[in-house]
Amino acid sequence: MTDHEEKARRYALLKAQLAMAKHQDKAVVLVIAGHAATYKSLLVNQLNHWLENRQTEVHALAPSEEDRLRPYWWRYWRRVPARGRVGVFVHGWYGDALFARAEHRIQAGAFDDRLKEINTFEAMLAHEGVVVIKVWLDIDAAQQAKRLHAMKADPAQAWQINERHWQRHAQHVAIDHHAKTLRGATHAPHAPWHCIVSESPDQQLRDITALLQDALTQPPSLPTQPDPNRAQTDAPTLNRSKNEDKKPSKSDYLEALTAAQARLAYNHRRCQERGIPVVLAFEGHDAAGKGGSIHRVTSALDARFYRVHSIAAPSDEERLQPWLWRFWRRLPQDGRVAIFDRTWYGRVLVERVEGFAEEQEWRRAYREINHFEAQLLTHGAVVGKFFLAISKEEQLKRFKARANTPHKQHKLTDEDWRNRKRWSEYQSAINDMLAHTHTPGAPWHLVNTDHKRCARLAVLDHVNHLLESRLENAS
Amino acid sequence: MTDHEEKARRYALLKAQLAMAKHQDKAVVLVIAGHAATYKSLLVNQLNHWLENRQTEVHALAPSEEDRLRPYWWRYWRRVPARGRVGVFVHGWYGDALFARAEHRIQAGAFDDRLKEINTFEAMLAHEGVVVIKVWLDIDAAQQAKRLHAMKADPAQAWQINERHWQRHAQHVAIDHHAKTLRGATHAPHAPWHCIVSESPDQQLRDITALLQDALTQPPSLPTQPDPNRAQTDAPTLNRSKNEDKKPSKSDYLEALTAAQARLAYNHRRCQERGIPVVLAFEGHDAAGKGGSIHRVTSALDARFYRVHSIAAPSDEERLQPWLWRFWRRLPQDGRVAIFDRTWYGRVLVERVEGFAEEQEWRRAYREINHFEAQLLTHGAVVGKFFLAISKEEQLKRFKARANTPHKQHKLTDEDWRNRKRWSEYQSAINDMLAHTHTPGAPWHLVNTDHKRCARLAVLDHVNHLLESRLENAS
Repeated sequence: MTDHEEKARRYALLKAQLAMAKHQDKAVVLVIAGHAATYKSLLVNQLNHWLENRQTEVHALAPSEEDRLRPYWWRYWRRVPARGRVGVFVHGWYGDALFARAEHRIQAGAFDDRLKEINTFEAMLAHEGVVVIKVWLDIDAAQQAKRLHAMKADPAQAWQINERHWQRHAQHVAIDHHAKTLRGATHAPHAPWHCIVSESPDQQLRDITALLQDALTQPPSLPTQPDPNRAQTDAPTLNRSKNEDKKPSKSDYLEALTAAQARLAYNHRRCQERGIPVVLAFEGHDAAGKGGSIHRVTSALDARFYRVHSIAAPSDEERLQPWLWRFWRRLPQDGRVAIFDRTWYGRVLVERVEGFAEEQEWRRAYREINHFEAQLLTHGAVVGKFFLAISKEEQLKRFKARANTPHKQHKLTDEDWRNRKRWSEYQSAINDMLAHTHTPGAPWHLVNTDHKRCARLAVLDHVNHLLESRLENAS
Repeated sequence: MTDHEEKARRYALLKAQLAMAKHQDKAVVLVIAGHAATYKSLLVNQLNHWLENRQTEVHALAPSEEDRLRPYWWRYWRRVPARGRVGVFVHGWYGDALFARAEHRIQAGAFDDRLKEINTFEAMLAHEGVVVIKVWLDIDAAQQAKRLHAMKADPAQAWQINERHWQRHAQHVAIDHHAKTLRGATHAPHAPWHCIVSESPDQQLRDITALLQDALTQPPSLPTQPDPNRAQTDAPTLNRSKNEDKKPSKSDYLEALTAAQARLAYNHRRCQERGIPVVLAFEGHDAAGKGGSIHRVTSALDARFYRVHSIAAPSDEERLQPWLWRFWRRLPQDGRVAIFDRTWYGRVLVERVEGFAEEQEWRRAYREINHFEAQLLTHGAVVGKFFLAISKEEQLKRFKARANTPHKQHKLTDEDWRNRKRWSEYQSAINDMLAHTHTPGAPWHLVNTDHKRCARLAVLDHVNHLLESRLENAS
């Protein structure tokens, strides 16, 4: 490549990057993985000089304590580049799985599980406007040995070579084998692998900048839509949600409440001591009593160890990220409780009904949500999901009561009345949601709240039940 | 207090909190400190039940690894409640200093330093619309012993008592003594201490909710404006910034550049290995060549260990925080480099000239900035501050060149021309900034960039010089 050609390519790359930064219509993720001694660091540095630094992030991850105290994927979600930016990940989410497998720290099944998770993660990114490209830098064992010895002998480079390089060299056959499996299992049109035989740093840079140039300028390829989730046959539906319990007297209620809260305080303390994270999701009709139920739960918790997240419209930082990002960022660390007053289910409820999300977006959200919750479960979290339902008549009664009670007026907004006009659309959206996301590990708990006292006790009982089951499995 | 009175007070408190949440005109920070066995946890929990959970955060801090890898105050800055919210801090920023002093882990001088830092921090919060109230829960040693033994004997409470309680009890005299000093030194109208003798949890709750009610409803008390910083007599000024160096030939320049970058790469690697964080701040006239200089620096750095932050308008999340928050959140962890392309000095430059900050705001920013940088220095960071200056004539030449060169047009905006019209206002703002923030630990380095090559070499040389001085002191 002549100087002139190189300049033209650099300028084209920069121009494409600046256009993306300006339009903020997508982000680019470049994963650079490969064998040891394939000039990865050199490559990342050169690449970084070609790109506009201010719009670029490089991540070579050594997970922090805060990372380790949260579900595995939290560490990557928090580092996803905002739209308009380029994120370069050295080994990315592939290094852990690949080296663990090559070193026999995980077996074939767990390796396969992780590769499936990777596919889901990358498909989610691709759907949300993140273009993912992945490069594997290849080298054969003989060439690798030659290069390592040459580097070791060169005083200017010797410091770069450490124990791990020799270890990876010794495992070349295993790494090579599992890397092939890995690439085969995670190659997709929307997140393709490019295998580049490592010859010269210059050639590698040329190949990769060409890939980047395409990623920055061409329209992204979207994942094929997977089959919709099969509806769970045992999923609750709104029509079947009759609460036949007898309404307790006030004194019976207070007695039961106190007992349930004492039990919860005890369970909460044990979860805290054992580092079990708890995620409680509350959805429901307007005026169904989410706030009151949450309050009865938090009254039993130690204020130092929980947080209530009230979910409203996303902030402008959140708007530049994949939609689930704003929920990932609020996940509790181990031993803590996060309570969501409205949740990620807004995607398939209000965003669907109001048209904020397109049909294909909310349709795929069922899967994305199930995957998200599966991540929490895998990490050992308790996941409780409550839908608080009331009848249309009861809602009207409560709206009117709110309108007429001074200290409740702030709870009633024009939006509540607007939503009420779309009652039947919401009912279908709710039933679809229940059908598609009532998973064995994270089932819905549908609570009829026409009787407020029964509803609150039901919520507390169920939270207790969830914590106790989890604690039993922990011991 | 009758039931009716209690209800009225709760409702008034809630109403005040909701009003604040709606108007987002201020935040409230409540620090609860005190002796052991003063029902602190109970109190925090009760308080939390009275407040609206969704707008409240409780922090009882055990610093994480990510906290420890950054300047001390980072852990508190990241937890400052956004305007509209209440933050409750158990012991807050007082616990560390108090208990370290009582246990002889720090001496009187360091204790005093910390108390001064606290005063600066709280004054900064108060100025930025954060109302700070602080409560000390007092108890005498005899009463404390009685309560600890009673709790230990009660199966329902015994688990709450651990080694640390007995240790704090044994140190009651020392803690009491230093707590008095601490309260005396950090009491201010804008961040007052309230000493409450711990009798019954109910009485404590009443006292504290009354304080909170005032904090939520009354206009905040502002700190008195401190004396302006004294101008440094040796501070550079724009007029004196003539660069008399001979312009090097291109080949001499490239040789010197390569040598300086190699030296920087080596210095950077040593800083990285030793965990020394580096913060480089670049300010300058439009078209003075900040981008080019930064690029010459980053070309020598390992892309995995630095990040360039291009500072533009704050996001909406940032707008709800004290103005320095968005710089605190971008500080590098130990061993990393953060390069700021435009910086916190925007407060006293563009925000002053364009009127985005009121006079009293940008005037106090000099002090706030000096304090901020002192925090970085105390943590062991290298702080490099560069002002890249050009003459008015040279700027015009460059603007015209940009307008006429296709691949440079994106660098020239209408704003550049607008700023140019205010040249003399910017000159005064720059000179004031240099005079007030040219501190011994973090002096300005003024670089005349009419000769681009000289300027780039000067920047690199100075960065090298800074790293080398710091490395010398480290060994």
